[in-house]
Amino acid sequence: MIIVTTAGITPDALDRIIEHVESAGLRTHVSRGEQRTIVGCIGEEGRLSEHGLTQLEGVERVIPVLKPYKLASREFSVANTAIRLGDTSDTTIGGRNVVVMAGPCSVEGRDMLLDTARAVHAAGARVLRGGAFKPRSSPYAFQGMGEAGLELLAEARATTGMPIVTEVMDPRQVELVARYADVLQIGARNMQNFSLLSEVGKVQRPVLLKRGLSGTITELLMAAEYVLAQGNGDVMLCERGIRTYETATRNTMDVAAIPVLKRETHLPVLVDPSHAGGRAHLVTPLALAAVAAGADGLIVEVHPDPKNAMSDGEQSLEFSAFAAMMPQVRAVAEAVGRTCEWRSNATARATA
Amino acid sequence: MIIVTTAGITPDALDRIIEHVESAGLRTHVSRGEQRTIVGCIGEEGRLSEHGLTQLEGVERVIPVLKPYKLASREFSVANTAIRLGDTSDTTIGGRNVVVMAGPCSVEGRDMLLDTARAVHAAGARVLRGGAFKPRSSPYAFQGMGEAGLELLAEARATTGMPIVTEVMDPRQVELVARYADVLQIGARNMQNFSLLSEVGKVQRPVLLKRGLSGTITELLMAAEYVLAQGNGDVMLCERGIRTYETATRNTMDVAAIPVLKRETHLPVLVDPSHAGGRAHLVTPLALAAVAAGADGLIVEVHPDPKNAMSDGEQSLEFSAFAAMMPQVRAVAEAVGRTCEWRSNATARATA
Amino acid sequence: MIIVTTAGITPDALDRIIEHVESAGLRTHVSRGEQRTIVGCIGEEGRLSEHGLTQLEGVERVIPVLKPYKLASREFSVANTAIRLGDTSDTTIGGRNVVVMAGPCSVEGRDMLLDTARAVHAAGARVLRGGAFKPRSSPYAFQGMGEAGLELLAEARATTGMPIVTEVMDPRQVELVARYADVLQIGARNMQNFSLLSEVGKVQRPVLLKRGLSGTITELLMAAEYVLAQGNGDVMLCERGIRTYETATRNTMDVAAIPVLKRETHLPVLVDPSHAGGRAHLVTPLALAAVAAGADGLIVEVHPDPKNAMSDGEQSLEFSAFAAMMPQVRAVAEAVGRTCEWRSNATARATA
Amino acid sequence: MIIVTTAGITPDALDRIIEHVESAGLRTHVSRGEQRTIVGCIGEEGRLSEHGLTQLEGVERVIPVLKPYKLASREFSVANTAIRLGDTSDTTIGGRNVVVMAGPCSVEGRDMLLDTARAVHAAGARVLRGGAFKPRSSPYAFQGMGEAGLELLAEARATTGMPIVTEVMDPRQVELVARYADVLQIGARNMQNFSLLSEVGKVQRPVLLKRGLSGTITELLMAAEYVLAQGNGDVMLCERGIRTYETATRNTMDVAAIPVLKRETHLPVLVDPSHAGGRAHLVTPLALAAVAAGADGLIVEVHPDPKNAMSDGEQSLEFSAFAAMMPQVRAVAEAVGRTCEWRSNATARATA
Repeated sequence: MIIVTTAGITPDALDRIIEHVESAGLRTHVSRGEQRTIVGCIGEEGRLSEHGLTQLEGVERVIPVLKPYKLASREFSVANTAIRLGDTSDTTIGGRNVVVMAGPCSVEGRDMLLDTARAVHAAGARVLRGGAFKPRSSPYAFQGMGEAGLELLAEARATTGMPIVTEVMDPRQVELVARYADVLQIGARNMQNFSLLSEVGKVQRPVLLKRGLSGTITELLMAAEYVLAQGNGDVMLCERGIRTYETATRNTMDVAAIPVLKRETHLPVLVDPSHAGGRAHLVTPLALAAVAAGADGLIVEVHPDPKNAMSDGEQSLEFSAFAAMMPQVRAVAEAVGRTCEWRSNATARATA
Repeated sequence: MIIVTTAGITPDALDRIIEHVESAGLRTHVSRGEQRTIVGCIGEEGRLSEHGLTQLEGVERVIPVLKPYKLASREFSVANTAIRLGDTSDTTIGGRNVVVMAGPCSVEGRDMLLDTARAVHAAGARVLRGGAFKPRSSPYAFQGMGEAGLELLAEARATTGMPIVTEVMDPRQVELVARYADVLQIGARNMQNFSLLSEVGKVQRPVLLKRGLSGTITELLMAAEYVLAQGNGDVMLCERGIRTYETATRNTMDVAAIPVLKRETHLPVLVDPSHAGGRAHLVTPLALAAVAAGADGLIVEVHPDPKNAMSDGEQSLEFSAFAAMMPQVRAVAEAVGRTCEWRSNATARATA
Repeated sequence: MIIVTTAGITPDALDRIIEHVESAGLRTHVSRGEQRTIVGCIGEEGRLSEHGLTQLEGVERVIPVLKPYKLASREFSVANTAIRLGDTSDTTIGGRNVVVMAGPCSVEGRDMLLDTARAVHAAGARVLRGGAFKPRSSPYAFQGMGEAGLELLAEARATTGMPIVTEVMDPRQVELVARYADVLQIGARNMQNFSLLSEVGKVQRPVLLKRGLSGTITELLMAAEYVLAQGNGDVMLCERGIRTYETATRNTMDVAAIPVLKRETHLPVLVDPSHAGGRAHLVTPLALAAVAAGADGLIVEVHPDPKNAMSDGEQSLEFSAFAAMMPQVRAVAEAVGRTCEWRSNATARATA
Repeated sequence: MIIVTTAGITPDALDRIIEHVESAGLRTHVSRGEQRTIVGCIGEEGRLSEHGLTQLEGVERVIPVLKPYKLASREFSVANTAIRLGDTSDTTIGGRNVVVMAGPCSVEGRDMLLDTARAVHAAGARVLRGGAFKPRSSPYAFQGMGEAGLELLAEARATTGMPIVTEVMDPRQVELVARYADVLQIGARNMQNFSLLSEVGKVQRPVLLKRGLSGTITELLMAAEYVLAQGNGDVMLCERGIRTYETATRNTMDVAAIPVLKRETHLPVLVDPSHAGGRAHLVTPLALAAVAAGADGLIVEVHPDPKNAMSDGEQSLEFSAFAAMMPQVRAVAEAVGRTCEWRSNATARATA
């Protein structure tokens, strides 16, 4: 922690600052400049109330030196974390291969889900997404099929072999959802639902953690830290657009978050181009941009009939549009030294 | 719902739009302008997927006509809702009297809480605030005293007669917190925690709902709608600053939200000047601005020793600063035709 | 300047950092913490390229210690700057009296201007506003009456005795506008038009500098510094709402900017509640909030027939609404220890 | 224009709305829904004050139907506009080939400029950038070399054959800068400097128009419209990051602006990854993302010695980093069906 004092601080006020810091068990290091005196605080920052310090006389600013996340940081693990998705699948995320997850926003019924699962699988998706519990801004909107939706997802997994990712919204549902899902998704609105984060930290299922609507990169990493601190190390982060003043798109995709996160953390980074843009015609360019910038994976909304979708129709791709996008994703992945393999790694290796 | 079509839409595409709308049970009304054709959709908007419509050929934009909130709207209730706070107190919020709630960010112990309760009560606060369950951005930070904190709050209520407001973060805690608290606070990070909102909608305790860090006014009202739709009509809304690009303050207090909300809804509107500014020296000017703009109440952080507070020290007022602020709040309240009565209404009336 | 180095920096890299700083003529002060080493740079910060430093090996962050504004800062002048408006008027801004400026967005013609001038003067305005050169987002929209508009403003001044404030948009117009106007307004879109700022810094006319749509408080003070650095010390700052994600209002009025600015600078601070809210019904609550928070003045759009105004009709007050607002402004001003005198100070004193 | 009326509007108020619209020469079309009545206004929207309408009794909302830009719109020109850069060069932008512009932030001297020009040319840049007039947020910072800098740019053009792009900040400098430069750059801070936009619209030089720090996509297109309306049709648009709450990067690159602009306008779209990210290590991933999303060109800051650069050192690439980026840009361009040719098209064709 560094304390910048005000111009013309009195010796008494400076003494009181030093005393306050040292009484918390830290050492101080005073550096007198021409216009400002700086007090460096050496020792465990957590023992000082950074915020309280600003109320001491003569304190202009308090600057923390250390990053608040530890387990999520690159200093904790220099090597990238690769996460295996599903008990029986050989799909991993966080390595050289770019993984595409796809499926409907909501599970609306058996036929639409199985049709979509087969279509995205045929086009190259490796993981099936689909919502059974839906966070909706209106209490009057469709809230998802609940456990019946989870059962359908499990059936789609059995049919296609793809692991499934689905959202969990409530700490009381974690156990239920974990019984069915291969990956637990924490939605953007719950990025700082700390009870929920702690709860998914206690089960042994990979977590797909979405960045909040106005979450900072640091807050996203701190949210991951909540999960990691409970013992669940399999967290992947997902950029899905942030809220800005621009209304031409649903959200503003923060593509720079990808290289920033790859530098700050060892955890895999995904992008959701569907929510980021909010319009079907933006999905492909945003997906390609994400892969070009270094994303480890994509999660994309696909629906058999977007104009009649019960949620997110305006941003869902039709089957044909998804199938048309996939070769482009692969081409860009290869242009930046990655792969985006269609079949399982094992099969690909066998036939290579 | 109004559909704006693209320039040069074909008659066929227009027919398909009309057919799509009418097949959902709505009537259409076509208006041909010089450059654009407009399709008005008459009937229950909820039966159409607004978002899906944008994927029909020839649709440029879809504009919903009705506001999404119903129970929270001024159309539902022209008269202001006044909420009685506490079973034994005669304090109500939402009427002419401006109510000040005050207390520490976190309950840190018995002495600090009782001292603070007595100090804010003496200075004119009508409700005691204090956190027992704390949402902290770091898993390593102090998370609150839990039920022991609730017990201390109850003791402070017994001592001072002030009703208590405290945060609930987890649907599993609602019953426990409701056993102690007079008002259940939903924090900014949980504004769209729909499981939690539904749960507090099922208990008979007033709810203080904070605006999310980047919640829109419409989303705040929709969050209130979640509570109201469950049968709990006692919801008060709280502006606490929104997230913007400006870093000189912790958040940006959206003071215009007060008159906008007072026009859109019948629910009481509070302001939290402590979180909005994030620095102690900003609390008083922001509190005065809030009252001048029409706020029904304030919720203010006060601590016996802010520089050693376990949370939010930089924005907590000392007792003396709070006591100095209150007469100014009262003066501004009276300048805009309100009151801000120190003692209970009954006593005040008796001695008037 | 403080340099925070990366964890595990090598002694060589540290030496190169120190050498780099010292070769620019500053001294260094090295403080070794448990996890990070800090290099304090003592001397004139301007001689080091703060930004370039981040490219040295082993540098994690560079933190400037000094504020970039000098003449605008409280350290330069502890006393508030009061600015006299108009050669013949005795109106000053920046003292105890809150000054209200009012008039139409654009000067649209002789009758409408003189009628408005008389109406706002009768209701208590002290300065007349009106645009002759209008920055419009569309090249096809009304761009103002130009010099003919300035002549009408001068006539309105002669009629009412009120000094006039009007916008200048182009460095080539500064001399012309300064010949007519008592106060030169720099619009929000030109806050960082450095050529224009320098040019108004060279004339002896007070400047009303509006905060940019997404200007930070520091950038606003730096824009003022451009004017001050040219020798024109009469700058008043104006909060007029910033751009955020919220669409319920035209802009988001940053009411906290008032106390932050009053602490950081000695210059007077105004608020424009018309642009901040963008709707007529928001003007009065925002004006009252501004005065409660410590604003030195207001600038308000008033029009004889807002629904037919050539610009900003939706946010202009009718004469009656302005007249109804003024006593409330006065009441709030008095509640916070200010005045808002209707007549000239001299007359007021004489009749007191 | 569509007018949505309030619930329960009286017949009289509705009549007055209709009369108001028709008296401006438009026709009306009334559509009565179950809860709201809608008034469609048919005819030239510009004859009605959209904003004034909101002040009529019974008006809830006014929704413009047409886009405000005309010459810049896709409706005006379905085909992409390709702009030839430089009188003697055969470089065009807006076609299949992705054009990279590169050079120092500021021209600091002869050697550094010529060295940089040669280095970026050798690595594949087609246009040289460099600032002679610099908009700096501090009046005390280096403001550029002025005309001497323009002369050095001309020398670098003569040496390398690359056309030059440089910023013009002041309407009084347009003629001077146009004498030297092949492309006139309008900086982000001047996106809504309408005097400057009009002035560059009058010269026959291509214009590179940067998006403002918080400019919307619509405002950017309206700024282009200012130039186009003066008769200069050669405008290219440049995304350079927008201002958001996120502080991990200097700005937030709005990568979705690329496909949105390509759909809305026929003008070429560039991206400035240097300003967007603000850190050298972000330039390459952001450049690749921009090309993947469909950008027609890039403008990149390169400096021989970034740590000692007089401006923007933290985001400038060294020669070697730029040279390493270019083959990746080419690979991604080819992956999305574009080219990024190193040598002139003519040479490339000859040797193909």
